Amino acid sequence: MALWSGRFEQGVDAFTQEFGASLAVDRVMYKQDIAGSRAHARMLAAQGIITDEDALRIVEGLATIEHAIDSGDFVFDVNDEDIHMAIEKALTEAIGDPGARLHTGRSRNDQVATDTRLYVKELLRSLMGHNAALRGTLLAQAKIHLGVVMPGYTHLQHAQPVLFSHHLLAYFWMLARDHARLEQAYRSADLCPLGAAALAGTSYPLDRETTAGELGFAAVSPNSLDAVSDRDYLLDLCYACSVSMVHLSRLCEELILWSSSEFGFITLADSFSTGSSIMPQKKNPDFAELVRGKTGRVVGDLVALLMVLKALPLAYNKDLQEDKEGSFDAAKTLADALVCMEGMLATMQVNAEAMRAQAQKGFLAATDVADYLAKRGVPFREAHEVVGSLVLLCEKRGCGLEDLALEDFQQASSLFEADIVGSLDIEAIVAVRNTFGGTGHEAVKAQIALAEETLASQGPEGL
Amino acid sequence: MALWSGRFEQGVDAFTQEFGASLAVDRVMYKQDIAGSRAHARMLAAQGIITDEDALRIVEGLATIEHAIDSGDFVFDVNDEDIHMAIEKALTEAIGDPGARLHTGRSRNDQVATDTRLYVKELLRSLMGHNAALRGTLLAQAKIHLGVVMPGYTHLQHAQPVLFSHHLLAYFWMLARDHARLEQAYRSADLCPLGAAALAGTSYPLDRETTAGELGFAAVSPNSLDAVSDRDYLLDLCYACSVSMVHLSRLCEELILWSSSEFGFITLADSFSTGSSIMPQKKNPDFAELVRGKTGRVVGDLVALLMVLKALPLAYNKDLQEDKEGSFDAAKTLADALVCMEGMLATMQVNAEAMRAQAQKGFLAATDVADYLAKRGVPFREAHEVVGSLVLLCEKRGCGLEDLALEDFQQASSLFEADIVGSLDIEAIVAVRNTFGGTGHEAVKAQIALAEETLASQGPEGL
Amino acid sequence: MALWSGRFEQGVDAFTQEFGASLAVDRVMYKQDIAGSRAHARMLAAQGIITDEDALRIVEGLATIEHAIDSGDFVFDVNDEDIHMAIEKALTEAIGDPGARLHTGRSRNDQVATDTRLYVKELLRSLMGHNAALRGTLLAQAKIHLGVVMPGYTHLQHAQPVLFSHHLLAYFWMLARDHARLEQAYRSADLCPLGAAALAGTSYPLDRETTAGELGFAAVSPNSLDAVSDRDYLLDLCYACSVSMVHLSRLCEELILWSSSEFGFITLADSFSTGSSIMPQKKNPDFAELVRGKTGRVVGDLVALLMVLKALPLAYNKDLQEDKEGSFDAAKTLADALVCMEGMLATMQVNAEAMRAQAQKGFLAATDVADYLAKRGVPFREAHEVVGSLVLLCEKRGCGLEDLALEDFQQASSLFEADIVGSLDIEAIVAVRNTFGGTGHEAVKAQIALAEETLASQGPEGL
Amino acid sequence: MALWSGRFEQGVDAFTQEFGASLAVDRVMYKQDIAGSRAHARMLAAQGIITDEDALRIVEGLATIEHAIDSGDFVFDVNDEDIHMAIEKALTEAIGDPGARLHTGRSRNDQVATDTRLYVKELLRSLMGHNAALRGTLLAQAKIHLGVVMPGYTHLQHAQPVLFSHHLLAYFWMLARDHARLEQAYRSADLCPLGAAALAGTSYPLDRETTAGELGFAAVSPNSLDAVSDRDYLLDLCYACSVSMVHLSRLCEELILWSSSEFGFITLADSFSTGSSIMPQKKNPDFAELVRGKTGRVVGDLVALLMVLKALPLAYNKDLQEDKEGSFDAAKTLADALVCMEGMLATMQVNAEAMRAQAQKGFLAATDVADYLAKRGVPFREAHEVVGSLVLLCEKRGCGLEDLALEDFQQASSLFEADIVGSLDIEAIVAVRNTFGGTGHEAVKAQIALAEETLASQGPEGL
Repeated sequence: MALWSGRFEQGVDAFTQEFGASLAVDRVMYKQDIAGSRAHARMLAAQGIITDEDALRIVEGLATIEHAIDSGDFVFDVNDEDIHMAIEKALTEAIGDPGARLHTGRSRNDQVATDTRLYVKELLRSLMGHNAALRGTLLAQAKIHLGVVMPGYTHLQHAQPVLFSHHLLAYFWMLARDHARLEQAYRSADLCPLGAAALAGTSYPLDRETTAGELGFAAVSPNSLDAVSDRDYLLDLCYACSVSMVHLSRLCEELILWSSSEFGFITLADSFSTGSSIMPQKKNPDFAELVRGKTGRVVGDLVALLMVLKALPLAYNKDLQEDKEGSFDAAKTLADALVCMEGMLATMQVNAEAMRAQAQKGFLAATDVADYLAKRGVPFREAHEVVGSLVLLCEKRGCGLEDLALEDFQQASSLFEADIVGSLDIEAIVAVRNTFGGTGHEAVKAQIALAEETLASQGPEGL
Repeated sequence: MALWSGRFEQGVDAFTQEFGASLAVDRVMYKQDIAGSRAHARMLAAQGIITDEDALRIVEGLATIEHAIDSGDFVFDVNDEDIHMAIEKALTEAIGDPGARLHTGRSRNDQVATDTRLYVKELLRSLMGHNAALRGTLLAQAKIHLGVVMPGYTHLQHAQPVLFSHHLLAYFWMLARDHARLEQAYRSADLCPLGAAALAGTSYPLDRETTAGELGFAAVSPNSLDAVSDRDYLLDLCYACSVSMVHLSRLCEELILWSSSEFGFITLADSFSTGSSIMPQKKNPDFAELVRGKTGRVVGDLVALLMVLKALPLAYNKDLQEDKEGSFDAAKTLADALVCMEGMLATMQVNAEAMRAQAQKGFLAATDVADYLAKRGVPFREAHEVVGSLVLLCEKRGCGLEDLALEDFQQASSLFEADIVGSLDIEAIVAVRNTFGGTGHEAVKAQIALAEETLASQGPEGL
Repeated sequence: MALWSGRFEQGVDAFTQEFGASLAVDRVMYKQDIAGSRAHARMLAAQGIITDEDALRIVEGLATIEHAIDSGDFVFDVNDEDIHMAIEKALTEAIGDPGARLHTGRSRNDQVATDTRLYVKELLRSLMGHNAALRGTLLAQAKIHLGVVMPGYTHLQHAQPVLFSHHLLAYFWMLARDHARLEQAYRSADLCPLGAAALAGTSYPLDRETTAGELGFAAVSPNSLDAVSDRDYLLDLCYACSVSMVHLSRLCEELILWSSSEFGFITLADSFSTGSSIMPQKKNPDFAELVRGKTGRVVGDLVALLMVLKALPLAYNKDLQEDKEGSFDAAKTLADALVCMEGMLATMQVNAEAMRAQAQKGFLAATDVADYLAKRGVPFREAHEVVGSLVLLCEKRGCGLEDLALEDFQQASSLFEADIVGSLDIEAIVAVRNTFGGTGHEAVKAQIALAEETLASQGPEGL
Repeated sequence: MALWSGRFEQGVDAFTQEFGASLAVDRVMYKQDIAGSRAHARMLAAQGIITDEDALRIVEGLATIEHAIDSGDFVFDVNDEDIHMAIEKALTEAIGDPGARLHTGRSRNDQVATDTRLYVKELLRSLMGHNAALRGTLLAQAKIHLGVVMPGYTHLQHAQPVLFSHHLLAYFWMLARDHARLEQAYRSADLCPLGAAALAGTSYPLDRETTAGELGFAAVSPNSLDAVSDRDYLLDLCYACSVSMVHLSRLCEELILWSSSEFGFITLADSFSTGSSIMPQKKNPDFAELVRGKTGRVVGDLVALLMVLKALPLAYNKDLQEDKEGSFDAAKTLADALVCMEGMLATMQVNAEAMRAQAQKGFLAATDVADYLAKRGVPFREAHEVVGSLVLLCEKRGCGLEDLALEDFQQASSLFEADIVGSLDIEAIVAVRNTFGGTGHEAVKAQIALAEETLASQGPEGL
């Protein structure tokens, strides 16, 4: 009696084989798998668990396989469940018994954890490099456009004038924090599980310090159960990528706004724009939109992994096979996004005049007029109200604060004098904001120096 | 001066080309794209917008292309941004001007929305089929094992005895609701956007009803801006898949528990189990774990799309290109999971004795003993307390309620008589729960009949 | 020896009491709890399980309690774990034994599920009402501003001119789909679990149809295990709220853009704006931002519940206590957001001139110029290129397409004639887009009629 | 003409007032708000921006207000939008003009960021304390139960025997990583935004170092735009809480399994268990379930905030008001969960015999039998197959490996000798796993020493 549908009955093995396989995802880790096996074999020999001759043949056999995969000559079998099995099988076929001795004192559970950590460390180094490169571009642009004034926004309303460089540098610091998060993820990954075996450690006199050292790990994991079931470093990777994508999405949102006909603050390079299949005039900021959109998938990768891990008993469970595809996708997506943003920012054209023109609108001087009064003894809250009434007056007349006569000011408060014009000049307003972190030119120059120092001292090399 | 890193400078076009392309994801929709173009061309001719001759050549050209893709002979160009461009370019190369007229009154914005809806309708029909098949298997197993009693659990503690069939049927109803959600997603998708053009409709006298009808859509979308930016049907798909995966994760959790040495309630077939690379004795419920784990990725896909759509202004934005990969992944994952579960359930061995043995433990009769008193006039809350004291007595003696003497019962309440033994028999306790939806044999038989009726009436055909 | 910290040791009971209690969340369901108990008591009497006298006293006692809670006179005890216990205890204190008989054939598991479903049905009815009200406002605004032309956008770039009404109506249809999702959630909730007892049904001859009918449920749940552990209706509620919030976030994003100095398309009412503590000139679209921001919490509520349910074995587990707080929050947040948006839209001022002025910029006529050629036989793809070159010419001259001389057009293609001016007029471009769903005035009028019909036929009453 | 519904029209101000207010959430930060204002006032005086007399009156006025709130005497006004406004208003009412001067050179944007960072630092210190306390309990239990052997699991199948202490310590290391994440979040928060004003810094000669120092911040934020819009520290908080809750959910899952009738490994204390309203015998691990369930809400809080921040332009937007409720909820939930788990673990009873009995089942010695052969020269892969056949033999006979005769072993491989019995003893199998991180007694003792050292060196004090 057939309890289930045709498709399955005719190919149970093929279906479950494919459903359970991870080769398509984990084959990218072949170099790490081979490095791990090489280190394990050498240590086994050094500890007298296998012979030096066996170790030598294993190491040579692995080198041949690595070369074959590098060159594309290695034939993966559809029956290989994962990269570990594919390589071990090829090794045993090539060198016989010594290959079958490689798995002594090791389990796939600690092997896959080792490979993944090694691979993730590579990913993180690369991400840190891309992060630094984008910060370099932000910094370069900030230096080039140092004099450009734009409206600063809160609630997307004109608030106070700021330097465009100051605005760009805000993203420098976000990315500096992202770099710190990538470093933290790196440190999470930098612990060697090899030797934990299936879950309990092993009775062989393994030298875990040596394999960890050869593989470049900072330390050895202290608990075998935890070693095979810990995926925190992948969570940390996904989280670091998520926050960085959120930061980039904010930058992209602004680039898209600035590229609009209404803002017109920047013009993206043709190489970072696309056209329309129907509208001949279109030049779309496609890549900024794409990066913004890809934020979703990276956060989705994080949520997926948190959900996989929820309520999972110790130690290894097959659910954990779902750990890599999303994590690697998060890393690749962020890497691409960082590279893309770097090119986009490096090639964008800044329309300083359009920025300055908008900075004249929206009563951006209002705070400074209030401060003018406050500095003459009016409590700030009262000064705020006085200026509010002046703004209302302007709105009725359809003019700016700079268009008011001195008498208008004096009618609102007798403390206003002729020098009020100094508080109405957008350039001057920017210029006086020179406390640390402010938008004044001197403060921004100091900030740039600090940013350069930070960038120089914080690199993947520094780890 | 080089503002950005080497990799990018040497390959700007190649990088952005690849970063912006969607061909790898959307090529699966080639049949839908061709069907949409065919319907559009015929309608253009019928409305006199292009000639019948042009339409004929377009339709023939598309048929040739479809055949080439079917057979694997079509060569995709790495420069093709998406499946729509790949096909249109091939068409124009093949038939010249008529091909270049196909895009009249159409934009990629409405074209991609049409293709995706058609493709998603296919996915949903397939998912409904797999859903029905799994329900069929649950029902078949419920019928086969109708007499098997197991402990029912709350808080994973023994609560009251239930029929194993009753337990399986709980999942039948979850899946029936999942089917309803898939149907709702289908109805969401069943609206034709073709004719919305880029965002505003078109000045050509298109006959949208005709193209919608030829493509099998239930209706035409009423607003062109909404038509090109609505992705609710993909959210609905991801959501339906998410809830169904959550349901399967609950079932998998139970199958894993039941397969453990401690429970021992079922034995999964060898074809749905795997071994260990290090521990020779292991037989692991890998596929149940894998399905449980894959719940994360599907929920991740849903979160990703919700996040993509958040705060996106009208109408089409490139962010929306991120709509397909996750949605299609959610659908494929659920489809595989449903097929896998069907095979797993159909082939599992039920260890009725182990279930029955556990049903004897844990004072499963306690509620019925309280009911015994309640039926003799003791307020239920008081009866509850009396039985609580009897349970305590048993725990001290290390025995079950059935091991107590009648005097023990009568010491706790004078209302107990010899017929209390009837309330202590696990089979009898199950048997009396025959109100609608209860676990009594008659109630479960009625439930099975209702389930069969539901399954018969609710199919993808019914849409 | 003290194994754990001081705080806990001194107050174990108080801490776990509070940690485990749900009264703060579930007390809002007191009316539903009382209605459920009333129906249960009457049915118990009708079935002869308790006496009519007992039922009468229970019903009267419950009425007294309900009145006390209504009026704020009921004193909740900090030791009451939940609303069910609080009411049952008060009842038993008030009427004695009959109160203790109320729980016959019932468990908190089916009781809480019944209460929650009743309460959620109320929430959903209310949400449907707010949804309809907002759609009414969108429709009213669409009718008032029928002649207003604005630039239509894709990629936030000017694309083609559209009617402002058409743009507003795009949101009408999103909200219409949201209404359908709320209805689906309502149908999910509309199933009575009462009688499932703890998990297995009961041996009492309960009449589940009667209680379900008295409580206004459409049907009785068919499986007792599923009845006490199913929370799909709360997922459906959270999902419906999530999608609707995403839709509102898109509208809010546009309102915020439109309120900016750069766009200037609308002016929000003072009552839907706020000022700044430091900048006297500010008028911020705070409420649109707040609604946009609250999208996150509602999606968070959905994710939370999906995660709670993942891998949970049957039947009731305490994890499920986490089902209500987030769901109720999602419903309240959406309700508030709908009300807020309704007021914001009803009171906003539309700056038609600013919209029209922007619609003149950005070559919005380009598609129609291409269509002009296509209608004269030029394949659309070629026409697209011709117009592309004209746009480039304009950009070099710093003018619009309407500023080109006829000779400029004819130099690009000899098919251009004097009537090309008709394709350059923004109003005319809008006017000709009259296929179903297009932005032409006639098409939009038809759309309004359809929307009115939809609104009239789709109400909470219709359920 | 009424465009919108009755409810709103009658109470526009009341509704938006309530909808926009954050007082209910941010009032918990009153001490931080007052501390920030006090430091700001003193600095203003020190810099000569206000008089010493004004500063003194402000500081005294704030002290009075703080005392009033501490004692519950402060009356919050429903019209107060947030805690900052409530306090400033009260201050100005109390002391007049000096109060109105407090806001000089400050905006609510930097004020709220300062308060939140101060408050979050407190939350994190508290969480680190609870984390350390729970680790202390795990360590104490590991030391008490050092000799107890239990089955180690992979795939929830018996894998190899492990020490119960080793299993507990796996959670010690997870929590140690959680502590590191809390520290990282602390460092994220430890940056003073005060002086950034609204978004651009200020023209007053503020001394940001001094206020930062008085408030206990490690440094001053380097960019004013970033300072008012950065919420990374709240993301870091939510993320640290999410991962820690996921870890606790894994522990809870195990405690629930171990409390089941089938496992019987532990008995939770009555104070950490609850009963049933209908089933008199039940003793449910309610609190472990509740912690497991609450994992969802914390991850939901993280997702919510990521979504709020996605695509948000600089600088402050009202969306950010949604940053606190979820973050504070995540912190409170984790704090409660840590306290709860500490009590639960400290009071649980360990059933060593039940653990040992299960450790005899499931061929837990199989790996060591394979290792026996491997140590005698058989390649491990072959040895694995030999033992697989022995396990099959046992299953057919219904016995364990220890029940086989020496001949049975020798029939499978001639290398087996009488000393094979040593490889079959569960205690011995555990004892030999003494490489670093293994489950052998000596290795676990070393691990305990390392854990003690870690715990001692890693405290909130160490920051």
